[in-house]
Amino acid sequence: MTGDEYGDLISSLAIANDKRIVLLVMDGVGDCDNDGEGTALQQAQTPNLDALASVSALGLHLPVAVGVTPGSGPGHLGLFGYDPTVYKVGRGVLSALGIEFKLTPRDVAARLNFCTVDSAGIVTDRRAGRIGDEENKRLLALIRENIKPPAGVEVLFETVAEHRALMVLRGDGLDDDIGDTDPQATGKAPLSPTAPPHDGSKTAAIVEGLIGQVRDILGGEPQANMILARGFAKFPNWPTFAERFKLTPATVAGYPMYRGVARLVGIEIVAQPTTAADICAETAKAMQTHTFVFSHFKYTDKTGEDGDLPGKIARIEEMDAALPTLLAADPDVLLITGDHSTPPSLKAHSWHPVPVLMKAPYLRGGDGGSFDEVACRSGQIGTIFAKQLIPLAMAHTEKLEKFGA
Amino acid sequence: MTGDEYGDLISSLAIANDKRIVLLVMDGVGDCDNDGEGTALQQAQTPNLDALASVSALGLHLPVAVGVTPGSGPGHLGLFGYDPTVYKVGRGVLSALGIEFKLTPRDVAARLNFCTVDSAGIVTDRRAGRIGDEENKRLLALIRENIKPPAGVEVLFETVAEHRALMVLRGDGLDDDIGDTDPQATGKAPLSPTAPPHDGSKTAAIVEGLIGQVRDILGGEPQANMILARGFAKFPNWPTFAERFKLTPATVAGYPMYRGVARLVGIEIVAQPTTAADICAETAKAMQTHTFVFSHFKYTDKTGEDGDLPGKIARIEEMDAALPTLLAADPDVLLITGDHSTPPSLKAHSWHPVPVLMKAPYLRGGDGGSFDEVACRSGQIGTIFAKQLIPLAMAHTEKLEKFGA
Repeated sequence: MTGDEYGDLISSLAIANDKRIVLLVMDGVGDCDNDGEGTALQQAQTPNLDALASVSALGLHLPVAVGVTPGSGPGHLGLFGYDPTVYKVGRGVLSALGIEFKLTPRDVAARLNFCTVDSAGIVTDRRAGRIGDEENKRLLALIRENIKPPAGVEVLFETVAEHRALMVLRGDGLDDDIGDTDPQATGKAPLSPTAPPHDGSKTAAIVEGLIGQVRDILGGEPQANMILARGFAKFPNWPTFAERFKLTPATVAGYPMYRGVARLVGIEIVAQPTTAADICAETAKAMQTHTFVFSHFKYTDKTGEDGDLPGKIARIEEMDAALPTLLAADPDVLLITGDHSTPPSLKAHSWHPVPVLMKAPYLRGGDGGSFDEVACRSGQIGTIFAKQLIPLAMAHTEKLEKFGA
Repeated sequence: MTGDEYGDLISSLAIANDKRIVLLVMDGVGDCDNDGEGTALQQAQTPNLDALASVSALGLHLPVAVGVTPGSGPGHLGLFGYDPTVYKVGRGVLSALGIEFKLTPRDVAARLNFCTVDSAGIVTDRRAGRIGDEENKRLLALIRENIKPPAGVEVLFETVAEHRALMVLRGDGLDDDIGDTDPQATGKAPLSPTAPPHDGSKTAAIVEGLIGQVRDILGGEPQANMILARGFAKFPNWPTFAERFKLTPATVAGYPMYRGVARLVGIEIVAQPTTAADICAETAKAMQTHTFVFSHFKYTDKTGEDGDLPGKIARIEEMDAALPTLLAADPDVLLITGDHSTPPSLKAHSWHPVPVLMKAPYLRGGDGGSFDEVACRSGQIGTIFAKQLIPLAMAHTEKLEKFGA
């Protein structure tokens, strides 16, 4: 019993066959209206997606729940068929995934911020004036040189960007029952990692000692003279995607975070392209040896985060133009969707339901000549949860046995 | 707490009155597109259903969950308002229902296959070459003559069809904590019914002894020289439909399986017609003495399973033509739907949402002039779970009290 009853039900019905499912994620593809001119998908010229829509099923998916905006981790876990409210990834693990730091089962990871404290130890700047990457690297080198972890424990530090870093404790029998030390506000002292309910954790006591050492090591620094740690977490021990769905999965993804999330559920990485053309070509190749290919296109999200509507439209058109290569490889089911919406007007991930297109056998006809947020609303898929998309694709490829006699 | 929180809530609000609800199940009525010509419902000429649609609510129901194909048991339990993922029927019990074998509370039932084993006891054919019914009967007679169950236990065997049979143990204090002996593959020996976690079961030990006897009895047979048993289950002790919903229910069903599923929840059988005309006439009659009538029409499923699209269309038209008799009896709420979809192109049950029509008072107008999968998608019922249909019909007949003050 995992708490993810729908996923467990699907897993219990899964059977293997040779049919191939492709999940093409246009990261953050969903949008809201822009000044009455429509969403990015509505404004883009997408002849290939529109032709596909006329013979495909359309719908919308909710990444987590109504009104809830997902991060990249939960957004992709949902698409992979893992309920993101049950399968939670700690921030420390996500920080490691984001820089492609390979965690082992002996590791506990935490997200670090350099910060500034005054002479009384009170936090005056939680980001140490957003120091640059070079300063970050210099400070981590200083810490590495001087820190003395207890016997049997290694401590690793990696720069993420600006004031952000990763700390990993490696050793036998470590736990992640460790409190955040970030007080989440200036004017307060850092918290103790052993504060209740974490006072029984052996590893929290080790962290307390290490942070004390770091305070001493950085004591003479003018700006970044302390660290704050949060999101202590071990690499999760979850059922792999292959076990869960009896698929042989591959990942085609150019950015570390998405390869990392795929690795969380044991999906092999087969290629790292970033352009739409290369992604479609590598996906077609991966389909020769895998029954499931997850392919990730970053730039629809990046342009959204940048508030760059014309850029987002152009990136959608770039993927549209590349699609024929992928279609020529003839996947049995092709799912095209996003992990969430990223409206340029918000410059951020959002909670809006995400358009889905599914080309598959055994449909109730095609749902129309346009792939966008409004057309998807009246499609035959309806509005479902992200975690239900892989099961639906499995149904259409006859990879799910009947429930009950 | 049963795990079926929605059902429990509805049950807590149920009140009795004289209004009458009819649930007409056109088994497997849902379809997907057929070569661009539409579904069976779209292709059928159904003037009565279409006229009804124009004054009724339309929608779709999910029998179990997105992507999940139900067997007949779970399909009907959902329609009866019992969450099929909570109210699970063992295969042994379903086998008994299918041949209308009346299980008692002292019984444990299992599905049997005759199989072939080699001299080392390894299964070489899980279906014993699909022996015929006559051979099945001869072998069961041989077993009945020679088997010696322990004191206080009766063992009953019934032919189902071909290599399939039913075994029932009858006695006081029997349990169904018994392992499947079917290894589900050739090249393996039958499994032990007492294999962990079943090693504490008294009844599993009895089954082990009985199967050993059967091996000896059939030892000289050339083909069917062993049996495999699976799905050991007792007749479930569930709240009856009458208790749960405060309705006085009747079943009108020509096929044993559906009468059996109705009996699972204590619904009385009042007639056994098979043609649409007879079903509508018997339903009208049953409405005089019952506030709920479940009426079952088999042939929309059978033609689907046979891959016979013209046949399925003709059967839909047969039911359409018969409807005026039922409508003349003026049920307060008439639900017309299927227990699942059975597309002729799949020749099997499927996962597709099932069209629903509900003629009822207090609607938000009629939903259009056509009863089919596409029209139902945009109807006022939306897409809901099968288990929510009876509660919805109860609401429209004022059989549910207000929740909270």
